[in-house]
Amino acid sequence: MEQLKRLKVKDLLKMNAGEDILAKGWVRTKRGNKQVKFIALNDGSTVNSIQVVMDTEKFEDELIKKITTGASLSIKGKLVESIGGGQKVEIQAEEVELLGECDPMRFPLQKKDTSLEYLRTVAHMRLRTNTFGAILRLRHSMAFAIHKFFNERSFVYLHTPIITESDAEGAGDMFQVTTLDLNDIPKRKGKVDHSGDFFGKKTNLTVSGQLEGELGATAVGEIYTFGPTFRAENSNTPRHLAEFWMIEPEMAFYDVNDTMDVAEDFVKYLVQYALDNCQEDLQFLNDKYDNSLLERLNSVLGIKFERLTYTRGIEILEEAIKNGHKFEYPVYWGADLQSEHERYLVETHFQKPVILTDYPKEIKAFYMKQNDDGKTVRGLDVLFPKIGEIIGGSEREASLEKLESRIKELEMSRKNLEWYIDTRRFGTVPHSGFGLGFERLLLFVTGMSNIRDVIPFPRTPKNAEF
Amino acid sequence: MEQLKRLKVKDLLKMNAGEDILAKGWVRTKRGNKQVKFIALNDGSTVNSIQVVMDTEKFEDELIKKITTGASLSIKGKLVESIGGGQKVEIQAEEVELLGECDPMRFPLQKKDTSLEYLRTVAHMRLRTNTFGAILRLRHSMAFAIHKFFNERSFVYLHTPIITESDAEGAGDMFQVTTLDLNDIPKRKGKVDHSGDFFGKKTNLTVSGQLEGELGATAVGEIYTFGPTFRAENSNTPRHLAEFWMIEPEMAFYDVNDTMDVAEDFVKYLVQYALDNCQEDLQFLNDKYDNSLLERLNSVLGIKFERLTYTRGIEILEEAIKNGHKFEYPVYWGADLQSEHERYLVETHFQKPVILTDYPKEIKAFYMKQNDDGKTVRGLDVLFPKIGEIIGGSEREASLEKLESRIKELEMSRKNLEWYIDTRRFGTVPHSGFGLGFERLLLFVTGMSNIRDVIPFPRTPKNAEF
Repeated sequence: MEQLKRLKVKDLLKMNAGEDILAKGWVRTKRGNKQVKFIALNDGSTVNSIQVVMDTEKFEDELIKKITTGASLSIKGKLVESIGGGQKVEIQAEEVELLGECDPMRFPLQKKDTSLEYLRTVAHMRLRTNTFGAILRLRHSMAFAIHKFFNERSFVYLHTPIITESDAEGAGDMFQVTTLDLNDIPKRKGKVDHSGDFFGKKTNLTVSGQLEGELGATAVGEIYTFGPTFRAENSNTPRHLAEFWMIEPEMAFYDVNDTMDVAEDFVKYLVQYALDNCQEDLQFLNDKYDNSLLERLNSVLGIKFERLTYTRGIEILEEAIKNGHKFEYPVYWGADLQSEHERYLVETHFQKPVILTDYPKEIKAFYMKQNDDGKTVRGLDVLFPKIGEIIGGSEREASLEKLESRIKELEMSRKNLEWYIDTRRFGTVPHSGFGLGFERLLLFVTGMSNIRDVIPFPRTPKNAEF
Repeated sequence: MEQLKRLKVKDLLKMNAGEDILAKGWVRTKRGNKQVKFIALNDGSTVNSIQVVMDTEKFEDELIKKITTGASLSIKGKLVESIGGGQKVEIQAEEVELLGECDPMRFPLQKKDTSLEYLRTVAHMRLRTNTFGAILRLRHSMAFAIHKFFNERSFVYLHTPIITESDAEGAGDMFQVTTLDLNDIPKRKGKVDHSGDFFGKKTNLTVSGQLEGELGATAVGEIYTFGPTFRAENSNTPRHLAEFWMIEPEMAFYDVNDTMDVAEDFVKYLVQYALDNCQEDLQFLNDKYDNSLLERLNSVLGIKFERLTYTRGIEILEEAIKNGHKFEYPVYWGADLQSEHERYLVETHFQKPVILTDYPKEIKAFYMKQNDDGKTVRGLDVLFPKIGEIIGGSEREASLEKLESRIKELEMSRKNLEWYIDTRRFGTVPHSGFGLGFERLLLFVTGMSNIRDVIPFPRTPKNAEF
């Protein structure tokens, strides 16, 4: 039996009884009696563990005692039919090697408390739980599906810069990046002198790759970004991270309608991919945390999303108020929609995902294409059940003149923007794009309700451990 | 003809003559005479342009005048057989719409100077050249192939943190991340007071995701990272970037031999993928910049990489010196190999890629598995023609005791390392991993010789534009 190749638990569970096998993994639980011990062995390849049966008389007491939750084992044995329990096969252990002990008095996952709140306090170890195994595998599958979707459509994956002089659209508070000695900041005329700083000027972490993405799209046609993005907002909420991952496709020669088609295809593709490839993990999360998860995932497939203007959306909300529906926030033309408004449209009125377009220009960014009415811009938001806005985007203003006048109107600094304006100065083309917050997508796909639980190492105010 | 769907140049070039078509793109060149103009139209979907033929009498002079290099066009016409030239078909233009002009006096790519050095000074526009189109598409294909390789092997893509308190292995100079007002740094007892900083302490940009990757591997088995990595080294060389992308797989239950197998399969897979999927772009780069590119790519396939110890490698180099070979840097057991040494082994001695193992512990990181000889560790480097080291990795020290004693020996601070040590404290397992610099790979695959030319927006000392 020396030459056995190690097999993963995922594969062992699908095999037939009779084979000699080698398995390695961590002990999830041990139970049993004096004659026999049952060990649930997990190696992270699936949310399911395989049962290992140890006849106690075949093994040293000392070894059996050290097989505790979290310990790592290498097991040679025979795959035999499992009597009772949900699984076809189990391992009858013949040789057991203890690879690593796990002191029950100190192991953080030994404790009774397995709440998500507690697990956040031991984030480096929570990855070893079934819950975070499932979430990590889903996160992987969604990332892969994103690359697959765009690759199939010949989009080019563009790495936009992380450290930048640009402040994008002035979208949010930024983290500064510096190599200056904070204990002794050099100054000139009373102000910070960045001449000795690594980049020779003030730089920060990107808040969006879109503007650089437009450089890419107006060069190779269709690009997408998928990278980390940063906001230094001091918000301690279940929906905010200081460091999160964004996907931002940008497409030359696409108008707002082409873009809605891509956005709708995209999210449907991702949900379908999860249902097709992550059944066991989804079932586990559905059963443990959110028993409407699978139903909700299926609810966005096989139907066409409702498309309407912001203006029509406001009318529907006003009618709802007339009919007695109460909202916390006021509804009027020009208001930024709140989550409660978005969810009313999606969950109550249309009962399917909604794409709103043509928003008031005052509540949208400077680069969105201006409509002829002088009041609205060609923005689009995709609204989903439970989470509200999942995608935001627009057709971009392609006219140099209109873009420049909007920048002036908003009294924006052009200083770090000339390179962007060049896209309209030299061979400008109609183009569009949108952004998807990766963790926002994962909240939808996993059914988790706190964004800190869908990223392995969350960065939030006062928290940058590991 | 109103309802024509726009087709990409890549697809048009493969079609047969006879069809009515709609094409959109940018003018690469315009030539011709009074009767007829020939426009090379490119939309970024391929390095090749399609020829558009305009009978001048069918179009306004004003329009024809504005069709200059860099201008964007929408063209309806008929696909006809191309007489002469390398292409099967060309477009006989029937309607031409000028989407965006491009002032020849100002357009940076209009200039005669198309050197890579010049293009670096207009990095936001260089993406529109054939060279950078080819590089961006190759960069995309390699990124996709990386995800595909690991997905096929059930590795989990793990997003390790970008902002971190950890300094990894102390691998390099770091960028600080802060929200403190640099004009007015708060101090306490003469030192920077980070209590009001976003994270409440000193944080920096990651120099490696490996240590966090080990947390992932010892939870779900096999993971890989693929994310931006930062070094604040003030090196203005063709091989250094302050911001670059790294791939770091980490595998539980793999020893150093398993890891060599994965590393070898991995780079072969990537090179094969490029040859299979990026023929036109590779041919273009081969013809324009490096006419041994295709030969070199093929040279790493279909053979087994040579595997030997560092000690044997030193012996070979010493023999070479005895036989009259001159190296710039000295060769002795314990020396860190220089690029010239690596290339001698690969290009002269073995004439194929080489994997060196079992390096002196003094020149390798603290976490590498210690061999029984007390002198060497189970590190591995994959060495390639032209570029030298392309992959570095090791089996990790799995023993808590040995890891702790090495940390002590090196007088490292354990302060931000306890979470890492926990991987050995609780259910430790043999595990291994390696790192591949994405831009290093791209230098090999594209044949470019300056690393600033294989990333869209290079960050180097004094340069963080866009």
